[in-house]
Amino acid sequence: MANLHAVIMAGGSGTRFWPASRRLRPKQFLPLVDGKPLLQATLDRIAGLVPPECTWIVTNAELARRLRKVVPGFPRQQVLVEPESRDTAPCLALATAHLAARDPAATMLVMPADHVIPDTKAFQRLVRRGVKLAADDRTLVTFGIAPTHPATGYGYLETGARLDQAAPAAFAARRFREKPDLPTARRFLKKGGFLWNSGIFVWTTRALCNAMASANPALAAGTRAMQDAVQAGRRKALVSAFRELPRISIDYGVMERAEHTAVVEADLRWDDVGSFPALTAVGKRDADGNVQVLGAGSTTLSLHSRDNVVYAEGKQTVALFGVHDLVVVTVDDVVMVCPKDRAQNLKELVEHARRHGREDLL
Amino acid sequence: MANLHAVIMAGGSGTRFWPASRRLRPKQFLPLVDGKPLLQATLDRIAGLVPPECTWIVTNAELARRLRKVVPGFPRQQVLVEPESRDTAPCLALATAHLAARDPAATMLVMPADHVIPDTKAFQRLVRRGVKLAADDRTLVTFGIAPTHPATGYGYLETGARLDQAAPAAFAARRFREKPDLPTARRFLKKGGFLWNSGIFVWTTRALCNAMASANPALAAGTRAMQDAVQAGRRKALVSAFRELPRISIDYGVMERAEHTAVVEADLRWDDVGSFPALTAVGKRDADGNVQVLGAGSTTLSLHSRDNVVYAEGKQTVALFGVHDLVVVTVDDVVMVCPKDRAQNLKELVEHARRHGREDLL
Repeated sequence: MANLHAVIMAGGSGTRFWPASRRLRPKQFLPLVDGKPLLQATLDRIAGLVPPECTWIVTNAELARRLRKVVPGFPRQQVLVEPESRDTAPCLALATAHLAARDPAATMLVMPADHVIPDTKAFQRLVRRGVKLAADDRTLVTFGIAPTHPATGYGYLETGARLDQAAPAAFAARRFREKPDLPTARRFLKKGGFLWNSGIFVWTTRALCNAMASANPALAAGTRAMQDAVQAGRRKALVSAFRELPRISIDYGVMERAEHTAVVEADLRWDDVGSFPALTAVGKRDADGNVQVLGAGSTTLSLHSRDNVVYAEGKQTVALFGVHDLVVVTVDDVVMVCPKDRAQNLKELVEHARRHGREDLL
Repeated sequence: MANLHAVIMAGGSGTRFWPASRRLRPKQFLPLVDGKPLLQATLDRIAGLVPPECTWIVTNAELARRLRKVVPGFPRQQVLVEPESRDTAPCLALATAHLAARDPAATMLVMPADHVIPDTKAFQRLVRRGVKLAADDRTLVTFGIAPTHPATGYGYLETGARLDQAAPAAFAARRFREKPDLPTARRFLKKGGFLWNSGIFVWTTRALCNAMASANPALAAGTRAMQDAVQAGRRKALVSAFRELPRISIDYGVMERAEHTAVVEADLRWDDVGSFPALTAVGKRDADGNVQVLGAGSTTLSLHSRDNVVYAEGKQTVALFGVHDLVVVTVDDVVMVCPKDRAQNLKELVEHARRHGREDLL
């Protein structure tokens, strides 16, 4: 599609996949999709839709240095380096500055690097719909996943009036709702008109800049300053402008206050793979409900064991005997065992390692 | 001590330490005592008491080939190879044939290779006492461990009259009792006069041969035939005589029927380390009751976790988060997780591996 750029946000760290994920090997680098890193799967998802020279990865300096190993074919000049981590609004402001400097008519498709969406064709159809909606140069398009259960780990989008009769369905966005508690999530599903906030967006750079100008003038001013710096080739000016941007998410900083927003309903399998138990979305499941994601050379052997999650890299066999609802992870230097219902809190264990001087494990 | 020989029975296989133990790496080869194999610890236990040229290891051909790695200094000519596995009576008949052929006045100290006895000095004192009792050339001396709890995993020795007032105390052996059920074991402890059967013995070869002759003539005849074969240097005759020996344990085959038996009461820490939970006897225990046996380069990290057993070789950190009463084992090619109360049944998992064509894991 003409002038369509893809901006992949790949700067996240996160500890919920420790010890597979580390500071320099975040979730988006993990080979979770048929042995392929989530970041590569994200790139593959837009093949044929966005040309390589319009595909951008935004990440931090440390991770940028490691991209060559993770996505070997990806060109260096398409990597945008965040001077520091300042949340998603600054991240996208940086991308906007770069794109707008090169192409005033650019349309941006924004995607987190670490989601799982198996159906590429359906995804591209949704994006095309979004691009059309964004073509008015003022609508900020977001994508809402049709919820399958009252999830409390996602934000929700409350939809308003349907915009037209075209498919996939698109609505005015009525409200952004933070991660709800379980009763609230249940109410959302019962009431209807609530979709999971996927964090995927489409807009023109012009529309985003205008929305920023009214929602968050500091963000808009910083974006303009960065754009000037890019055009002038002044890296230092870019960096100092970036460092002054407000630390805020794009949802809070812009989307919630924007006048023209649309939600495209995405009725497809989507998972943000938030922690090990979510590997159900990508792993193989045996008859006893054990889910496994195995690297080359890894195998499992299980007896009297059910509903476990195994993640193994390297050449070990993971043998389970009489256990259930555990997460068992083995990588080169660490074996980790925890109950599935603790997996969301692995950050605690990582902090424990840090406090005990085990920087080597972080 | 003059003419004292040590015979270490090291032919056992066993699966209760899988995946640390394998067919070619049985429990007695595992570095369970301060990084030292149990077999080496057994050798160290008689240092100064039995000279190296009187110390014998009896094992099978496959394990004999591997001894050089496990007990590097041990001389090859002191290894007695069982032509096949036929239980402990044939094993000791073979040793008796070799010793009697060399030294008609030999006294034998018999020890399993895979027990843990931390107090060497106390152990040697007990052996000296046993040697004195056996000096009459007719008494078969066994050692009974003072029980600390109503164990159901050990056989018991019921003691009769005290033999004399010397220390350590020695008794006539009244009866050998098989592994009891829990009520029986409790009754034994309440009644008193019951000791755990350690499987450690002292006797002269002459006394043993005489006891065999009356208890089990076939065993005695086979032993004589093997002794002749050793003296004539006829390996084939030795092997065929061995293969005709009755498959029976020394307890059932000889001890229970012997007229002159004595029990030396061994009031010391002893453990036959029957399965992973028994690593408590050799491992380090943290404040939360987690027990660990770690190879060089292995470490642990645990949080909200208690009463687990960790066995690690190689260079991995075993991280436990919110788990309890588990056994977690990691070796080069396998990670195994099971509840402690399943650890006795690891044989099932090994059989499962065999049935599924995983010979590589056996």
